Amino acid sequence: MLLLSNYLSIRKLSETICEPLQIEDYVVQPIVDVSPPKWHLGHTTWFFETFILKPNLIAYQEFDADYNYVFNSYYETVGARVIRTDRGNLSRPTVADVYKYRAHVNEAMESFLCTEPEESIKQLLILGLNHEQQHQELLRYDIKYILGHNPLFPAYAEEHIEQDLKVEQQDWLKIDAGIYEIGYEGSDFCFDNELRRHKVYLPDFEISTALVSNEEYLEFIKDKGYQDFKHWHAEAWDWVNTNKIACPLYWHFVDGKWLRYDLTGGLKPIKLKDAVSHISFYEAAAFASWKGKRLPTEFEWEIAAKKIKWGKLWEWTESAYLPYPGFSKAPGAIGEYNGKFMVNQKVLRGASVATSPNHKRITYRNFFHPNLRWHYNGLRLAK
Amino acid sequence: MLLLSNYLSIRKLSETICEPLQIEDYVVQPIVDVSPPKWHLGHTTWFFETFILKPNLIAYQEFDADYNYVFNSYYETVGARVIRTDRGNLSRPTVADVYKYRAHVNEAMESFLCTEPEESIKQLLILGLNHEQQHQELLRYDIKYILGHNPLFPAYAEEHIEQDLKVEQQDWLKIDAGIYEIGYEGSDFCFDNELRRHKVYLPDFEISTALVSNEEYLEFIKDKGYQDFKHWHAEAWDWVNTNKIACPLYWHFVDGKWLRYDLTGGLKPIKLKDAVSHISFYEAAAFASWKGKRLPTEFEWEIAAKKIKWGKLWEWTESAYLPYPGFSKAPGAIGEYNGKFMVNQKVLRGASVATSPNHKRITYRNFFHPNLRWHYNGLRLAK
Amino acid sequence: MLLLSNYLSIRKLSETICEPLQIEDYVVQPIVDVSPPKWHLGHTTWFFETFILKPNLIAYQEFDADYNYVFNSYYETVGARVIRTDRGNLSRPTVADVYKYRAHVNEAMESFLCTEPEESIKQLLILGLNHEQQHQELLRYDIKYILGHNPLFPAYAEEHIEQDLKVEQQDWLKIDAGIYEIGYEGSDFCFDNELRRHKVYLPDFEISTALVSNEEYLEFIKDKGYQDFKHWHAEAWDWVNTNKIACPLYWHFVDGKWLRYDLTGGLKPIKLKDAVSHISFYEAAAFASWKGKRLPTEFEWEIAAKKIKWGKLWEWTESAYLPYPGFSKAPGAIGEYNGKFMVNQKVLRGASVATSPNHKRITYRNFFHPNLRWHYNGLRLAK
Amino acid sequence: MLLLSNYLSIRKLSETICEPLQIEDYVVQPIVDVSPPKWHLGHTTWFFETFILKPNLIAYQEFDADYNYVFNSYYETVGARVIRTDRGNLSRPTVADVYKYRAHVNEAMESFLCTEPEESIKQLLILGLNHEQQHQELLRYDIKYILGHNPLFPAYAEEHIEQDLKVEQQDWLKIDAGIYEIGYEGSDFCFDNELRRHKVYLPDFEISTALVSNEEYLEFIKDKGYQDFKHWHAEAWDWVNTNKIACPLYWHFVDGKWLRYDLTGGLKPIKLKDAVSHISFYEAAAFASWKGKRLPTEFEWEIAAKKIKWGKLWEWTESAYLPYPGFSKAPGAIGEYNGKFMVNQKVLRGASVATSPNHKRITYRNFFHPNLRWHYNGLRLAK
Repeated sequence: MLLLSNYLSIRKLSETICEPLQIEDYVVQPIVDVSPPKWHLGHTTWFFETFILKPNLIAYQEFDADYNYVFNSYYETVGARVIRTDRGNLSRPTVADVYKYRAHVNEAMESFLCTEPEESIKQLLILGLNHEQQHQELLRYDIKYILGHNPLFPAYAEEHIEQDLKVEQQDWLKIDAGIYEIGYEGSDFCFDNELRRHKVYLPDFEISTALVSNEEYLEFIKDKGYQDFKHWHAEAWDWVNTNKIACPLYWHFVDGKWLRYDLTGGLKPIKLKDAVSHISFYEAAAFASWKGKRLPTEFEWEIAAKKIKWGKLWEWTESAYLPYPGFSKAPGAIGEYNGKFMVNQKVLRGASVATSPNHKRITYRNFFHPNLRWHYNGLRLAK
Repeated sequence: MLLLSNYLSIRKLSETICEPLQIEDYVVQPIVDVSPPKWHLGHTTWFFETFILKPNLIAYQEFDADYNYVFNSYYETVGARVIRTDRGNLSRPTVADVYKYRAHVNEAMESFLCTEPEESIKQLLILGLNHEQQHQELLRYDIKYILGHNPLFPAYAEEHIEQDLKVEQQDWLKIDAGIYEIGYEGSDFCFDNELRRHKVYLPDFEISTALVSNEEYLEFIKDKGYQDFKHWHAEAWDWVNTNKIACPLYWHFVDGKWLRYDLTGGLKPIKLKDAVSHISFYEAAAFASWKGKRLPTEFEWEIAAKKIKWGKLWEWTESAYLPYPGFSKAPGAIGEYNGKFMVNQKVLRGASVATSPNHKRITYRNFFHPNLRWHYNGLRLAK
Repeated sequence: MLLLSNYLSIRKLSETICEPLQIEDYVVQPIVDVSPPKWHLGHTTWFFETFILKPNLIAYQEFDADYNYVFNSYYETVGARVIRTDRGNLSRPTVADVYKYRAHVNEAMESFLCTEPEESIKQLLILGLNHEQQHQELLRYDIKYILGHNPLFPAYAEEHIEQDLKVEQQDWLKIDAGIYEIGYEGSDFCFDNELRRHKVYLPDFEISTALVSNEEYLEFIKDKGYQDFKHWHAEAWDWVNTNKIACPLYWHFVDGKWLRYDLTGGLKPIKLKDAVSHISFYEAAAFASWKGKRLPTEFEWEIAAKKIKWGKLWEWTESAYLPYPGFSKAPGAIGEYNGKFMVNQKVLRGASVATSPNHKRITYRNFFHPNLRWHYNGLRLAK
Repeated sequence: MLLLSNYLSIRKLSETICEPLQIEDYVVQPIVDVSPPKWHLGHTTWFFETFILKPNLIAYQEFDADYNYVFNSYYETVGARVIRTDRGNLSRPTVADVYKYRAHVNEAMESFLCTEPEESIKQLLILGLNHEQQHQELLRYDIKYILGHNPLFPAYAEEHIEQDLKVEQQDWLKIDAGIYEIGYEGSDFCFDNELRRHKVYLPDFEISTALVSNEEYLEFIKDKGYQDFKHWHAEAWDWVNTNKIACPLYWHFVDGKWLRYDLTGGLKPIKLKDAVSHISFYEAAAFASWKGKRLPTEFEWEIAAKKIKWGKLWEWTESAYLPYPGFSKAPGAIGEYNGKFMVNQKVLRGASVATSPNHKRITYRNFFHPNLRWHYNGLRLAK
C-alpha cells in the first residue's frame, strides 16, 4: 500500500536525520525555540498514537501513559503538557526508550494500515505525516543550533544540506497590476492556512530574481547598518541593542575575518556568493531599507514565484500571518494546528534546503516571529 | 490668521483637559504605556520648539537646554532621551515649570506666526498640531488610567466624554465583492500611513451596524469564555493566564455585581446597553470566535464605514499594521513618525469620544499592540 | 506634658524636613527602596492612628478607611497593603490631604494625651515616635535620591546636613582580648534588637580612629579596584558587573573630573578630606581587602566606640544582622518590627548626620542589604 | 604510595556514584543550582590538570585546550568560563569523552605521583581530593534532583544512602555558659574557613539530642504553618508565596496522602520516624518559631556535638557564614575557594549520608543560601 510505504519512509527519515548525533545531542535545549531532538522523535510518534491508534485500533496497547504528558506540544485539547522551556531538563525517557516507542507505534501502524482506513482517518494520517515532515525541518534547525552553539563546534556530517547555497544571477522581474488568485488549488494535501483560494488586487511591482548574497550583506555590515537606527523598526532597534546583534546567527568575527559555523565542524570563512541566511525579519527589513528597497508581500511572492527560481531558503515577506478570507479552524485538537498562531508573526514563502520536497509548493505559508533566525531563511528584494 | 488661531485653540485644549487634575496627578506613570500628564504637556511643546522655533526663529531663546533630554519621546534623530519607564520618576521640571515652558513657546510661536511661514514649515506646523491632538487623546487615556487605578477612585469631572456610549440598533450590512479604493484622497492633512490611495479586491462580506454591547460581552464572561482556550490565540491564552485576565479593564466584580470605574468618581454598575470598551485585541478576537464570527479587516471597515454610523470607540480590526503600497518615510526626524512601528501591531479604525473631531476620518489608521486596552476601543463583528 | 511636647516636636520635624520640596517631589519613587515623601508622612501618621487612637480613643473618628490600605508598610497583621513598588504610582491622596491627615491625627493625639496614658500605651507611643524618627532619616535619604537622580539636579537647600563630613585624624586604637558586655543597658527606650545585654569574647584587635576619606577611596578607584575581582565577594562581583558600578552613588566622572551631586543643587567637585559615603557593603569590603585590612565586627565596634569619635555616617560592619541570645519578638504587629528582617542583611553601627540625635547610642543596630547604598554610610577599617 | 592510592580510590568513587545513570542523566541541568553530572566529572578532573599537572609535569600533554573554558567553575583567576546556567546546554564533550579525559589525567597523575611531590604540591593535591569529595556530595544531590523531578520518577538504585534516616531518642542537652574554643585543631587537612581556632563566649543553652522528624514536621504543615506569616522572615514569606511552597522538596500530596520521591523509583509514603529533610533555612527557622524554639548557632553546635550523635543530615544553624577572626585567603586561584562566598549564606554543621566519611568532622563549615533545599539537610532545635 502506498500509504504504508509513505508512512514508513517518512518515519525512517526522521531517524536518518538524527543518525550522526551522539546520545547527548538528543537531550539539550539551549534556547526556548529549540527542542531536544529526542523530543521531536517522541512528539511526532505521540501524534500517531494519540490521533490514529488510540481512537481507532481497539487492540492497541499504549506504550506508556506518562508519555502523553511528556510529548504533547501545545495541544490544549489533549491535556497537560511539559512546558516548552522544560524539555531540556528531562533526561528520561532515554533516547533508546524513544526509539522503542517509535518502533512500538510503527508496528501498530503497520498492522493498522493492512486495511485501507476510512477517509477521515486517512486525512488525519496524511496530516500526521506532513506534521512529521515539518518536525524533520525543525530537527535540522535545532541540530544545527545545538552543535553550532557548542564551544567545541562539533561536526554534523561531511555531506550535508548547506553545500550549495549560491545565489542566482540578479535581475528585476516586472509584474503588472491586476487581480490575481491566491491560495491552494488542487486535491492534494495542503495546510488549512493555504485555503481558501481567493482574489487579491496587486499594483505593479518588481521583484529580484535572486536572494541577497553574503557579499551584499557584508556591505551593509561594513556601512554600519547595525548601528544606524533609521533602517530599523522601533522594536527591532531595541532587539539589536538589548541582544548586541551585529551579524547573522552563526557568524563570528575572529582576528579580522568573518567566519561561520560549518556543518562539517569548526568555523570556516563566509562564502561570499552564497545567499545570506539565518537573519531575523528585523534584519531583512533593515537591509532592504538600507538598499532603498523593500520586502515583497506574500501575495507578490506567490505570483512572481511562477516565473523565478526559488527554494533554497525560506524568504521573509512583509506580510503578517493572517487568515485568508473564509478561513475556518477544524474542530478539536486538529483545529489548533495553525489558526491560533495568527497574530504577531511574519509569513515566509518558498522552501529551504531543510524542507521536505513534497512541502515545496508555491502556496505554502511558513511563519515565524520577526526576531527569530535559527531557521534556514533569506531575503529577496522588491520595489 | 487662521493658523495662529488654530494653534492657540489646540494648545489651549491640552490644558483644558488637565484642568480637573491635582498637581500629583500630573506626575505618576503607573504602567509603562501611560505617560505622566505633565510629560505630554512638555513633549508636545518640545515638538514646536525643536522642529519650528529653533531652526526658523533666529531670535528664539531656548527655554531650558535640559528639556530636550526630558521631553524627547522616541526621536532617535534628535539625541538622547529619558527612557519611557523612567518618566514617572521625574519630579522636576514641576508642573508650574511645564506651564511656563508652554507659555514661553506659545509666545514665540505667536510672534513667529505674525508672518505667513513658508510652505514646508507650515506642513510641519500642521503635523505638530495633529501630533498635539493625538497626545490629547492619549492624555484622556492616561488620566483615566491614573485615576481609575488609584485605590481611592477619585473623580475626574461631573461632565465627561463617556456619558453616551449606547450602541446602535444591530443589523447586518452586506457589501458586494469587487475592487475598492483605499487610503486618503484629498488635499487636507493626513498622516503618511494613510497614503497612498490604492486598489484592493474585497470578497463579499457582511458587517454589523452596531458595536458589541456590555450585555453581549457579559454573556461571553458568563459562558466562561475567559476559561476556554479554544477561542484564544496561543499568545493570548498565555496573556490571559499570566495576567489572570477575566474581564475588561476598569471592571470589578464586587459582592456578586459587575462594577466599573466611572469618571465621576467611584465604582458604578455596568451600563448594559453601552458598547463594551477597554478590551485587548485578544479579547475582541476571542469574543468574535465565541460568537462564530470574526473581526473585519481594515479595508472592509473603510468601505463599510461609508454606510454605517461609527465613531464612539476605536474598533479593533483583524489587520496588521503594515505599509500601504508605495509607502515611504519622510527624511529626518519626521520620518520616524509612523513607519517604524509597522510590525507586530494591530490596526484600529474609526475614532473615539476621546478623539479630536478633525481626526475623525474614514481613512485614519490607529494602531496598538494586541495586548493593550487602556485606550478607548471596542469591537464590531463581521462574517 | 513632656510626652505631648515630644510628640508635637517630633511630628513637626518630619514636616520641616519636607519644607523645601515641591509638591511633585513628594510623589515619585525612582527605585523600589525609596518611598515617596508623602508616603512617609502618611505612614508615620497611620502608625499612631492604628496602634494608639483606634484601640484607645473611643471618640476617635477615622480619617479615611482606605488609608489603612495605602499607608500600611509591611505589617501583615494589619491587613492588605500597597506593595512597595506601587507607592510611586499613587497620585492620591494628595500632599494636601496627607497634611490634613497629619493634622487630624495630631489633634486627636493632643486630646488623647491630655491625660497620662497607661504604661503599655506609653511604650507604644514612644515606639511610634522612634519609628517616626527612623522615617525622618529615611526621608532624608529618599529626598536626596529623588533630587540627586533628576537630570536637572535641583537644590534641596542652601543649609543642609552634609556641610561637615571631614574625617578625623587617622590612628590605630588597640583593644585587648577579653570578655565584653554587648547590648543595651538602661531604662530609656531602645529597640528590641539591642536587647538583651550579653557577654562576648573578643580577641585582640586594632581599629582606625577615622573613617575612610574620599581621597583614599579615589586611590582605590585609580588602582582599578572596581575591575579586579579578587577584592570582591562572588555576589558582589556579579553586582558590580551587572550594574556597571565604578564609583560611589552620586559620583559622576565629567570631563576628567570627579563630581558629585550637592544638596545646594548641581554637581560639585569631590571634597577629598570628607569621609567617603554612599557605598555598598560590597564596596566597603572590597576597599578593605584592597587595603589589606578588614571591617570591624559590630561587637568590636561597640567596644571601641567608647574610645573614639563616631557618628557622621553609619559604618558598615562585617557582622550579619542576627538576634542576640535570648531575643524574642513582641506579640502582634509590634513584633514585626525587627526580628523578621534578621536574615541576609548587614549591621551598620554608629549614626549619621541624618539621624535623630536621640537615636545616637552605642548599642543601636542599623541594618541594610549589602548591595544598598542610598543611605548615609561610610567605612572604618580594622585589623 | 598512600597519596596515589588515595587519589585513585577517591577518583574511582566519583565514577561509582554515576554508575547507575543513563547517558542522558549526565547531561541535564534542571535548575541553576544543579550541575550536569558529566560537568562534575570533568570539573574535578580539570582541577588536577590545571593546578597540578600543567604547572608541574613538564611532559604533560593537555587533553583539550577548550576544556578550560568548559570545566572551569568560578575561578576568575584562570580565565573565561561557561556561565552556570549554560552548563545544561552543552551536549559536548560527550560522557565518553569526559571519561577519556578522566583516564588521561589519572594516567598522568599516576606517573607524576611515582615520586613524592614537594610539600606545597602535596597540599594542593590534598585540596584537590577534598574538592572532588565535595563534588561527590553535590553529585548525589544533583542526581537525586534530576531523577526526582522527572515526571517518570526513575530509580537510582535498590541500595542507596537514604535507607536509614531514623531520628534518635529526643532529649535536651544542657550546656553551661563559658568560654569555648572553636575551629580546627590538628595537623590533618581542613578547609581554610575552619581556621583559626579561637575563643568564643557562649551563654547557657539547651540543644535537642535528635533531629526533627517527618512526623513533627507534618504537624507544622497541618497546623497551617506555611500559611501563617508570623513564623517567617519577611523575605522567607515572599519566597513561600512567590514559589507556592507548602511542603519539603520531593514531597507530593496525592489523593489525600503525603508521598515522596524514593531513590528506588516512584513515589512512596513519608516515613514518619525519619528526620525531615530537604527544607530551606527559611522553613527550618519557621518550624522552630512555630515550636517556640530556635536554631542553634554554629558555635553552640560545635560544642554540643561532642556529646550528641550527629551526621545523617547537614543541620541548619542560625549563624551567617562569616570569616573567623584572623581568617585570610590564600593567594591565587586557591584563595577563591571559600572566602568570596562569605556574605548572605547560612552555615550548616554536621555531615550527611552523602558526605565523604573523612569530611565528617566537628569543625566543618558547610554553607548554602537560605532558600536552597536540594542538599541533604535537616534541623535540630535549641532553646
